[in-house]
Amino acid sequence: MTKPTADILDRLKKIVGPAGYIDNPADMEPYCVSWRDGWRGDTPLVLRPASTAEVAEIVKLCAAAGVPIVPQGGNTGLTGGGQPHAGGLEVVVSTARMNRIRAVDTLNDTMTVEAGVVLTTIQDKAAEMDRLFPLSLGAEGSCQIGGNLSTNAGGTQVLRYGNARNLVLGLEVVLPDGRVWNGLRGLRKDNTGFDMKQLFIGGEGCIGIITAAVLRLFPKPRESQTAFVAVPDPNAAVKLLGLMRSRLGEQVTSFELLQRNCLDFVFDALDGHEDPLAEIHSWYVLTEVTGQGAPGSLKEPLEEALAEAIEQELVPDAVIAASGDQSKKLWAIREELAEAQKLTGVGIKHDVSVPLSRIAEFIERADTALEKAYPGIRPCGFGHVGDGNIHYNPIAPKDWDGAAFAAEREKVNRIVHDIVAEMDGSISAEHGLGRLRREEAELYKSEVEMDMMRAVKKALDPNNIMNPGKMLRL
Amino acid sequence: MTKPTADILDRLKKIVGPAGYIDNPADMEPYCVSWRDGWRGDTPLVLRPASTAEVAEIVKLCAAAGVPIVPQGGNTGLTGGGQPHAGGLEVVVSTARMNRIRAVDTLNDTMTVEAGVVLTTIQDKAAEMDRLFPLSLGAEGSCQIGGNLSTNAGGTQVLRYGNARNLVLGLEVVLPDGRVWNGLRGLRKDNTGFDMKQLFIGGEGCIGIITAAVLRLFPKPRESQTAFVAVPDPNAAVKLLGLMRSRLGEQVTSFELLQRNCLDFVFDALDGHEDPLAEIHSWYVLTEVTGQGAPGSLKEPLEEALAEAIEQELVPDAVIAASGDQSKKLWAIREELAEAQKLTGVGIKHDVSVPLSRIAEFIERADTALEKAYPGIRPCGFGHVGDGNIHYNPIAPKDWDGAAFAAEREKVNRIVHDIVAEMDGSISAEHGLGRLRREEAELYKSEVEMDMMRAVKKALDPNNIMNPGKMLRL
Repeated sequence: MTKPTADILDRLKKIVGPAGYIDNPADMEPYCVSWRDGWRGDTPLVLRPASTAEVAEIVKLCAAAGVPIVPQGGNTGLTGGGQPHAGGLEVVVSTARMNRIRAVDTLNDTMTVEAGVVLTTIQDKAAEMDRLFPLSLGAEGSCQIGGNLSTNAGGTQVLRYGNARNLVLGLEVVLPDGRVWNGLRGLRKDNTGFDMKQLFIGGEGCIGIITAAVLRLFPKPRESQTAFVAVPDPNAAVKLLGLMRSRLGEQVTSFELLQRNCLDFVFDALDGHEDPLAEIHSWYVLTEVTGQGAPGSLKEPLEEALAEAIEQELVPDAVIAASGDQSKKLWAIREELAEAQKLTGVGIKHDVSVPLSRIAEFIERADTALEKAYPGIRPCGFGHVGDGNIHYNPIAPKDWDGAAFAAEREKVNRIVHDIVAEMDGSISAEHGLGRLRREEAELYKSEVEMDMMRAVKKALDPNNIMNPGKMLRL
Repeated sequence: MTKPTADILDRLKKIVGPAGYIDNPADMEPYCVSWRDGWRGDTPLVLRPASTAEVAEIVKLCAAAGVPIVPQGGNTGLTGGGQPHAGGLEVVVSTARMNRIRAVDTLNDTMTVEAGVVLTTIQDKAAEMDRLFPLSLGAEGSCQIGGNLSTNAGGTQVLRYGNARNLVLGLEVVLPDGRVWNGLRGLRKDNTGFDMKQLFIGGEGCIGIITAAVLRLFPKPRESQTAFVAVPDPNAAVKLLGLMRSRLGEQVTSFELLQRNCLDFVFDALDGHEDPLAEIHSWYVLTEVTGQGAPGSLKEPLEEALAEAIEQELVPDAVIAASGDQSKKLWAIREELAEAQKLTGVGIKHDVSVPLSRIAEFIERADTALEKAYPGIRPCGFGHVGDGNIHYNPIAPKDWDGAAFAAEREKVNRIVHDIVAEMDGSISAEHGLGRLRREEAELYKSEVEMDMMRAVKKALDPNNIMNPGKMLRL
């Protein structure tokens, strides 16, 4: 690979016109660095096409000239998948200007959007039409739907509505040869061959650039109840989930586990919080049930389920939010945890999943192994336990220097991920591989699976121009 | 391609032992013909391996010898995808003996099953564990889960629970080179590269043989209500669905549309039925709502939703089943429709889907075009309208000879499917392509999409030994 020539760069600029590119280093900087974890690289040119046709022309030219492309949405990813490598060989193609909502169909419960539409814009538009688009995550104010789909984003409502994969019916994609695949079908059933869209969803931009999507909409819930529940251990949390689902079905929308440490980190580092329960417990669940019934209609069923859980000794104490404000305060504990961790000390992050039946075992084994290797390490486990997804982010022992602990990252990753792998879990439940977990995936995935993935990549991007070196090494 | 030699056949037999193969023509017959529509072919050998290891050995040997394989489950498919071609070049590999339930995990709500387990066995096992496995379709007493997954089966509960694709978390597959991919993960979140299982689901056995799967289980509903509802037209049906979902959410489990004709076919051809409503209407919806609440708890919400629909003039009349028996009688109308069609006359079948917002337009346009081409043709439209899926099976005009009408199949298909294609619909919503729709798929799918599908097939099955000529021509 060589740097794109001045001639190629000129021709790329002509495709998008003056409003469609950035080529001065200062303005390109935000496209070259990640907001967290220090991923950075260089590019000679950031392209901001305004249409699928422009994307197609760009890719055609890059394919002919052998110029690799880094597709980029809101640049909110956590694994270094969206920034160029060092060296300035790649051009960045940002979808930011492709931000039109093309259509809303309330009978079909679908919305057709371009890749650059920001997630909250979609949520808001859905709400305006008396619908719900349930994808919801921390970065929702700046992430773009194209990136959400390319990384198969998760978030806090996966339990009820599934991952991003489950929220999309059709895609439009510019392929690595510059051809446009119009797969914008708004169908819930279509068995006419391989379901090709599934490869682009979670494909991390490695075989094409998603330019538009048909998204599923859902009835807007009219009622919701939030509960903050103490549990003796993660196993009780999983049993509580089963009990709640048997009583409330899909209405159990969120089910987040929190280790006591997490609460203390929030209470110690940030103002405006108070302990929701009178006593101190080892573990908590923050759960939300939502439904279509009248406001208040889920309170009694939720109370009954919790009463049953108390009777079964799964739950020592619980509180149901008495108001929307109180619900917000409970959720704030969960939402401000990321900030609180940062203020507490250097943490080493893991985004893992295991079968729900092994969550307790995973946490216990990982805590024990880490305490042995790093006495005084501060466990910090929380996450979307209803999906088997734990954000397991132990924080440096108090007497450790932060940088010294950060230098242990690979060793800590190995301890945690070896346990995950023994439990047939995933080392990246919702964040993807990018550059952060690419080599680790090779460690833990079978050769057969790696071979299949490489075969697909080579079949669809034979010249490796789409986001090369991300997710997968050839 | 040449016929497998006697030596190869002997070696294949040795892999499975005497209990594992059939080689006399009479006993092989059921593996070579379809139960409907007359698909048939020949094979020199039907293999019935008892384990994944045996399947792997078979495939390895076939790959080395260039012997193509037809994977087969319960042989209940409707598109000629599961039988060998004429000529005896292919061996059949039946999964029938791989029928163990390997594990049930009620905390993770998963069941790990081998490919040959019959669907009702899985449903029953789930029920025994106080869980629901929601896949449900006409052939459930003999179809096997491997085939259900390979065809991404649909059925009557897709509205709530999704297609087969949505019911599987992990797969074990023997690849075309005989290697075993152990992707039997019981995870709800796993973003570590391309989601390879998605290619095998609905892949019609063209890139590997599914040998086992991790299936999702759901809470068993404790309450259900069935309603038979008249609607003036299909558009009102779609609006009624929206209304019901806004009131009852995911609890709306089934939502089946029936043209008046369909009722008459059943009432005229079969005994034991009566019209559920006093007056005659043009269209009907058979809907079922299920939930986790106490028995009877959904009656009032359903009544309220229907009352609102009556007020909005979406519904002229409706009845809610007063008992389980009455519910069964209502469902029998829908379930015996296939038999009634056969007794009424020769029909030409279509399994199409369109966006819900275009169902009414589709039916109107197709009815009109067919009446013009075949005056007196008897429309017969019904199906899973909640999924946009219509089984559109017009029956020969009364004065036509059945065989003469059957000979019009391609012309009728073209009229119907051209309209479907103009509406961005699917010409095979839930039955797959097999041999029946393979050429038609080429007509309606874009060259770009066909190229991608071929690229995937070639990447994963370069020697084209897995179910060659099904779904896709190379």
